[in-house]
Amino acid sequence: MPSSFSFELIHTSKKSRARVGRIHTPHGVIDTPNFVGVGTNGTLKSLDNATVHNIGLQLMFCNTYHLMLQPGTETVKKAGGLHSFIRRSLPIITDSGGFQVFSLAYGSVADELKSRGKKKQEKLVLKITEEGVLFRSYRDGKKVLLTPETSIQAQKDLGADIMICFDELPPYHIAGKDLKSSLDRTHRWEERSLNAHLQNPSSQALYAVIHGGINPDLRKASCDFLTALPYDGYAIGGSIGKNKQEMIEMLTLTLPRLPLEKPNHLLGVGDLESLKLCVPLGIDTFDSSYPTKAARHGVLLTKQGPLNITKSCYAQDTGSLEEGCSCSACKEYSRGYLHHLFKAKELVSMTIATIHNLHFMVEEMARYREKILRDEI
Amino acid sequence: MPSSFSFELIHTSKKSRARVGRIHTPHGVIDTPNFVGVGTNGTLKSLDNATVHNIGLQLMFCNTYHLMLQPGTETVKKAGGLHSFIRRSLPIITDSGGFQVFSLAYGSVADELKSRGKKKQEKLVLKITEEGVLFRSYRDGKKVLLTPETSIQAQKDLGADIMICFDELPPYHIAGKDLKSSLDRTHRWEERSLNAHLQNPSSQALYAVIHGGINPDLRKASCDFLTALPYDGYAIGGSIGKNKQEMIEMLTLTLPRLPLEKPNHLLGVGDLESLKLCVPLGIDTFDSSYPTKAARHGVLLTKQGPLNITKSCYAQDTGSLEEGCSCSACKEYSRGYLHHLFKAKELVSMTIATIHNLHFMVEEMARYREKILRDEI
Repeated sequence: MPSSFSFELIHTSKKSRARVGRIHTPHGVIDTPNFVGVGTNGTLKSLDNATVHNIGLQLMFCNTYHLMLQPGTETVKKAGGLHSFIRRSLPIITDSGGFQVFSLAYGSVADELKSRGKKKQEKLVLKITEEGVLFRSYRDGKKVLLTPETSIQAQKDLGADIMICFDELPPYHIAGKDLKSSLDRTHRWEERSLNAHLQNPSSQALYAVIHGGINPDLRKASCDFLTALPYDGYAIGGSIGKNKQEMIEMLTLTLPRLPLEKPNHLLGVGDLESLKLCVPLGIDTFDSSYPTKAARHGVLLTKQGPLNITKSCYAQDTGSLEEGCSCSACKEYSRGYLHHLFKAKELVSMTIATIHNLHFMVEEMARYREKILRDEI
Repeated sequence: MPSSFSFELIHTSKKSRARVGRIHTPHGVIDTPNFVGVGTNGTLKSLDNATVHNIGLQLMFCNTYHLMLQPGTETVKKAGGLHSFIRRSLPIITDSGGFQVFSLAYGSVADELKSRGKKKQEKLVLKITEEGVLFRSYRDGKKVLLTPETSIQAQKDLGADIMICFDELPPYHIAGKDLKSSLDRTHRWEERSLNAHLQNPSSQALYAVIHGGINPDLRKASCDFLTALPYDGYAIGGSIGKNKQEMIEMLTLTLPRLPLEKPNHLLGVGDLESLKLCVPLGIDTFDSSYPTKAARHGVLLTKQGPLNITKSCYAQDTGSLEEGCSCSACKEYSRGYLHHLFKAKELVSMTIATIHNLHFMVEEMARYREKILRDEI
């Protein structure tokens, strides 16, 4: 099938598996490795899309679950697709909706990853079967059936450059046999997602999601099964461990089993420490709400480490937010003023901090790419 | 005393008292009549000052009471004054702090104007004497003495282009004799404010505040007393009536008693209906949080009247926020998308709506000036 999606591998470090590449999409290029901003409802929190464009974020991650319920994928489709609706001209990746639906069933994402194993909002998930998941919209109470086919259809309606297969997200504490059953079902759902996609690939790409939790054999099995199918790229998802060490062990085992000529994505991870650990393993893209969430709490990312602008030591600091930073927030405003805006609970404090943090991430990833090109990492 | 503050009267309508002028200040020109945006804490709600600059708001109103308590006028002074601290290169007007302090004593502004006469947060106001008002900071519990002299000093530290005299804001339901006593005290306080200012006028201007409630004799007496003193301009304050009719009657009586060669300002009024009624009476500037507050509730100002974007009829509307509007929000985003952002409770919804409403006010005032120049109002 003709597709304007492709991955160009430019350089692999002599020192590690770290690599520099370019993902070509119908809405432009994503230089890799790169950070993917999370714009759940079609906007990064506290920034408008024109600002995000100017900062230079090459890929935005939108959540199908949220967009299905508000404004509805039909509305987005009628408006000419997500790019047109949210006025973003650069690439967009959407997830399948599965992650959020299973979070409703098994507890929040944080509960899951931290293995607190809570059951929350169970009543919203009505039935999980081989067909898919039946749940109730928290907005209007209507029943919604999410299956591989309806998820792909929703992502087609949204018109994302990169879509993600519908998968089951098992809880962290699942036992071995149940994890295997869940993985088998996920593989069947991912294959159904691929078939649904290939009926009308348009110029969209589809990523599979490698599962298997932290069980090495199941991770390997998942790589084997999914890399045998013609996906455009591979996301790494499911329970990726309850700490960084478990995550790194899992990724060290997983990455060499993914095809070098296709892009990969690490789902939901993008804090600075994880980037440092994962870029050398060969991860191409990372999505995370960490930089925008940190900003809303007054934490600025800087080359010298995180800086909590709400601390009283910054009240009279007339210096720019980060010395030498070229972002519009640093060019305009001082630490003392931003400190004041947070203390005065002005919403614009979050906007200013988010501009800086997003710019920082864009620059940070460019620095990673330069280092890889020089074989320094 | 040399001062770079001056008022240039350009044209008075043949049809009414409406007039077009220019207020010259050390930070630039304010074309009148004009709308003054309220930036209580040194920022308009949900907009950063670079955006406000680009929209072309010529005068921003900041609240001395709020800035005294957070970040403190000393901090602002050390940062080089308010313009430098908040990064605004265009003119700023500050109030005296009296309005907020007396609101603490006599109830909120809305209570006052609507004559609900509630007593609220009384405990924060410790003592009202001839000297001034002693109150407790809601931030750190420290006692603060606000007098004509400390208010002017605070406004000197802030470095506003236009300052306002310290006055007493009596409750709406005050009886005749008490209102007279309050007015006499206000006049003494305003004279003390002027004397404090003239010790070091720098290049700042000082406006008096005409009081007298809705009592015609007292309003006249206030005009007589204050216009005999060398203020740079006259604000109209105090209880201005519990409805538009009372306000218009009071203004109709007051305006002809103010010197034509000096600018005037109507405190806290700037809704579209009031502008229509007050511009023909000869008001030069209006401050109001109405356009920014309306925006945060999803109400867009348009030439066709207010439009509540949260209504479901806009969910699938792909048109721009206001047809023909040249603001950056209208150029970028559709009604359907802004509706979605409000429904999804994204903070950026408020930013986008505020950009539009502020731009609308800037344009609306330009339209008023054009009409006056053509003697149409």
